[in-house]
Amino acid sequence: MTSSGFDVLCIGNAIVDVIARVDERFVSHHELVKGSMNLIDEIRAEQLYADMGQAIEVSGGSAGNTAAGVASLGGNAAYFGKVKSDQLGAIFRHDMRSQGVVFETPAAEDGPATARSFILVTPDGERTMNTYLGACVNLTTEDVDRKTVEAAQVTYMEGYLWDRPEAKEAFKLAARIARAAGRKTSITLSDSFCVERHRDSFLELIRSSVDIVFANETEIKSLYQTQNFDGAIKAIGADCGLAVVTRSEKGCVVVVGREVHQVPAHPVTAVVDVTGAGDLFAAGFLYGHTHGKSLYDSARLGSLAAAEVISHIGARPEISLHSHAEAMGFL
Amino acid sequence: MTSSGFDVLCIGNAIVDVIARVDERFVSHHELVKGSMNLIDEIRAEQLYADMGQAIEVSGGSAGNTAAGVASLGGNAAYFGKVKSDQLGAIFRHDMRSQGVVFETPAAEDGPATARSFILVTPDGERTMNTYLGACVNLTTEDVDRKTVEAAQVTYMEGYLWDRPEAKEAFKLAARIARAAGRKTSITLSDSFCVERHRDSFLELIRSSVDIVFANETEIKSLYQTQNFDGAIKAIGADCGLAVVTRSEKGCVVVVGREVHQVPAHPVTAVVDVTGAGDLFAAGFLYGHTHGKSLYDSARLGSLAAAEVISHIGARPEISLHSHAEAMGFL
Repeated sequence: MTSSGFDVLCIGNAIVDVIARVDERFVSHHELVKGSMNLIDEIRAEQLYADMGQAIEVSGGSAGNTAAGVASLGGNAAYFGKVKSDQLGAIFRHDMRSQGVVFETPAAEDGPATARSFILVTPDGERTMNTYLGACVNLTTEDVDRKTVEAAQVTYMEGYLWDRPEAKEAFKLAARIARAAGRKTSITLSDSFCVERHRDSFLELIRSSVDIVFANETEIKSLYQTQNFDGAIKAIGADCGLAVVTRSEKGCVVVVGREVHQVPAHPVTAVVDVTGAGDLFAAGFLYGHTHGKSLYDSARLGSLAAAEVISHIGARPEISLHSHAEAMGFL
Repeated sequence: MTSSGFDVLCIGNAIVDVIARVDERFVSHHELVKGSMNLIDEIRAEQLYADMGQAIEVSGGSAGNTAAGVASLGGNAAYFGKVKSDQLGAIFRHDMRSQGVVFETPAAEDGPATARSFILVTPDGERTMNTYLGACVNLTTEDVDRKTVEAAQVTYMEGYLWDRPEAKEAFKLAARIARAAGRKTSITLSDSFCVERHRDSFLELIRSSVDIVFANETEIKSLYQTQNFDGAIKAIGADCGLAVVTRSEKGCVVVVGREVHQVPAHPVTAVVDVTGAGDLFAAGFLYGHTHGKSLYDSARLGSLAAAEVISHIGARPEISLHSHAEAMGFL
């Protein structure tokens, strides 16, 4: 943390990813919707894990990945999220801090274990996530450290938080504090099913208290219940000061009111695992945006960070994104 | 398990690998001997972990990797090893069973946590291991299930077990049971420092009760305290019925008394992480040897399995070695 505070504070579900390669049949046999995030209970988590092959464990969580990405780019990042004081919780905390992210949310001493997401990666690189929220359900308004929020240029929150009433309240409190301190708020819509579940309150929140919205094409269409991408873009332009909508290999669209900027995607040689693509895009964009870069250049940084993370298994950068961006002439 | 029992029973330290990429300076700064396995206590484990960057967790342990490799090749494998009843222990057990390995050793209910090895991978693909043995210290003769040993064609044990007196006794008991049942015993020398620590008793064991010895060039030279490779080969040929000595890219040497067979290495495009190379070589060799293959073809299977595991991070196969070996015309 520099004297000027944090560039980005990320708030989200603190999750350890349990990643296994599976074939297409595994996904259909378990009646999963490919590419989506499914919330599962402990019993289902145990069943699915028992059926899964050998896995690797790696820290994840949407906003956690974004915080790690901001830090990897050289930014000052903080994180709020709830783990339990168990082995997976210690792993999650280590991985955040080792990237330079300030993560001080106290671990839960009892209650459910640290959250896990069973991520099934099919041969096409697509991922299907099955999340047992565990200790995440204990994230409350008490975990919103006012000083950290006030010290962050942008407070970025994942839509997934909306799935738990206590986390939703924490989210809203953080947004209020940020706004009152003259800071910016940002949200990612997270997942089209998440948008389905919370459309009305997402819209209300975006219209009243969000400065920067991140979404992908499916999510933004779901938000406005339309199949017309241009219509959805117009609608988000009217509802929010700045929106960035990613479209996989088609790049992204930056929307500022009626202005719409197209930004091409960064080239990717082979897609290994798309987990974290959106999270790292947000990291790159927010790093650029908080470091005086243009919207176009910020989007290109987002695309660069996303391209790195989908080239390997796991949703956090494997290399220093700062060095990578420098080498590519982006910084 | 088929009606004829197990092809290979592996006994070793049950360890979860915590793998991070580091630069050369990290290894020298922490005064580590590159390429070796260092035993560390809990305090040192915590210090090292705090200094390490973001890591991934993946089940490992030398003989555990071998068991997983035998199973991946389609063999019937069993494993004895001690985890604690904690989250990492559950991960280890899941990963063994999901490969089809029979692993019934009860978890320790109290005492130290499941073992971890902090594996630092330098840019050249070399690994430096720092192992906190944790719950492994609770592996005793009580964990040697007689029926399983008697049902296994080969009982394979890692030299690392020698570092704890109780595990050493378990090792010796298993060897006695196997021999009495007319089964074969096998040992890997594990690491040249391990050989340094236990040279005399390794030699005594090999001469009295081991049928198949696995070693690499450094280990076999250390065993006979010589810089002369050919001399070491002659010595092991006199001491043991069958020895296989691996020499990285130079392939391996199969020693049967005075007969010495050279077998070339399987080609590798890029070495990412050498962790598990020896373990998977042993898996391939033992699978071939217990399935009627010639010594030459068994060594080629070992080389194929080793080549797969060094092409990625982590010490267990990422693909079905059976399908891979079939596709390559080895099965």
